[in-house]
Amino acid sequence: MTSPHPHFKPVELKHASRLINHGPTVLVTTAHGRQRNIMAAAWSMPVEFTPPRIAIVIDKSTYTRELIAASGVFAVCIPGAMAADLTYAVGTSSGRGADKFDRLGIESVPAPLTGVPLPVAGCVAWLECRLIPEPHTEQAYDTCFAEVLGAAADQRVFSDGHWSFREDNSDLHTLHHLGAGNFARASTMVKAQPLP
Amino acid sequence: MTSPHPHFKPVELKHASRLINHGPTVLVTTAHGRQRNIMAAAWSMPVEFTPPRIAIVIDKSTYTRELIAASGVFAVCIPGAMAADLTYAVGTSSGRGADKFDRLGIESVPAPLTGVPLPVAGCVAWLECRLIPEPHTEQAYDTCFAEVLGAAADQRVFSDGHWSFREDNSDLHTLHHLGAGNFARASTMVKAQPLP
Repeated sequence: MTSPHPHFKPVELKHASRLINHGPTVLVTTAHGRQRNIMAAAWSMPVEFTPPRIAIVIDKSTYTRELIAASGVFAVCIPGAMAADLTYAVGTSSGRGADKFDRLGIESVPAPLTGVPLPVAGCVAWLECRLIPEPHTEQAYDTCFAEVLGAAADQRVFSDGHWSFREDNSDLHTLHHLGAGNFARASTMVKAQPLP
Repeated sequence: MTSPHPHFKPVELKHASRLINHGPTVLVTTAHGRQRNIMAAAWSMPVEFTPPRIAIVIDKSTYTRELIAASGVFAVCIPGAMAADLTYAVGTSSGRGADKFDRLGIESVPAPLTGVPLPVAGCVAWLECRLIPEPHTEQAYDTCFAEVLGAAADQRVFSDGHWSFREDNSDLHTLHHLGAGNFARASTMVKAQPLP
């Protein structure tokens, strides 16, 4: 059987922060026993390079938070521009009581380290994460800290630790939510020059 | 005297989170007494809509952290694409011992609520913030939480609570740091459609 992600290669942990350094909107996938879920999250950021750690805001009322509290693991998947509709759809409905993967026809495979579901189509990178319990910030700010256990990315848009957004891979550009289903696409690049 | 920011208008606090919802790289400006500083930060995010609160990673070794600890306030300024060189320059040098505003020729005006310096040129929005002391996360993750006191944005690219990235305002598009002085620009927009 061929891999469902033929263009993906592992990302070195020291480069994992680069996947979300530029602020893309992400999908959070979770599983606990036979329960699983997928939601969108606009609010995440790296907090440390080595060991790679991130912070992500996940509302305490969500099914995703319930599953993370139970399993301690989750994945942060980065959708490409071709998955804008999917990203908005999983961000505007709850998976409580009705499996969103089934309902929206999202095919998935288990992540290598944590077993959480990874969408087969639409994502250009993912990070597998283990929650670092921080009860106060989880309660006061809905902010969850996590260690990145492993990461992989689509070589057509991220390779050797660098994103490359070009005209010929526009479907793979990352999405950055502006509100109400409108996304900016990271679609051109600017190289800073030293000031005189 | 005309305002140094003629295109800026206040942003309602309920819309302040939208300014950084899409993950732009920002400039953090600070002042305490006659000391002041400006640095770049790629890692920030909203954590709450109302009251508007954000989280931002500022290394504990920086001069900026020292000034924030002393004054309790700072501004998050969002550079436009025309300020890529400035953004990288202030992100790769320390202001300790040599005022970066003077050294780099950055003209500034005092922010209306906090008095911290706001660059006259190059930024398309800013948020004035008051630190919410959280000693544990500041120490363990360099993550500072803050309440947004006020915000303003350049009407040519952000108005009525919404970003509008168009061909005719490309110099004002936000920057999203990819690493080593390479930025993605939020330069095209995608509108999600309901899934069938």
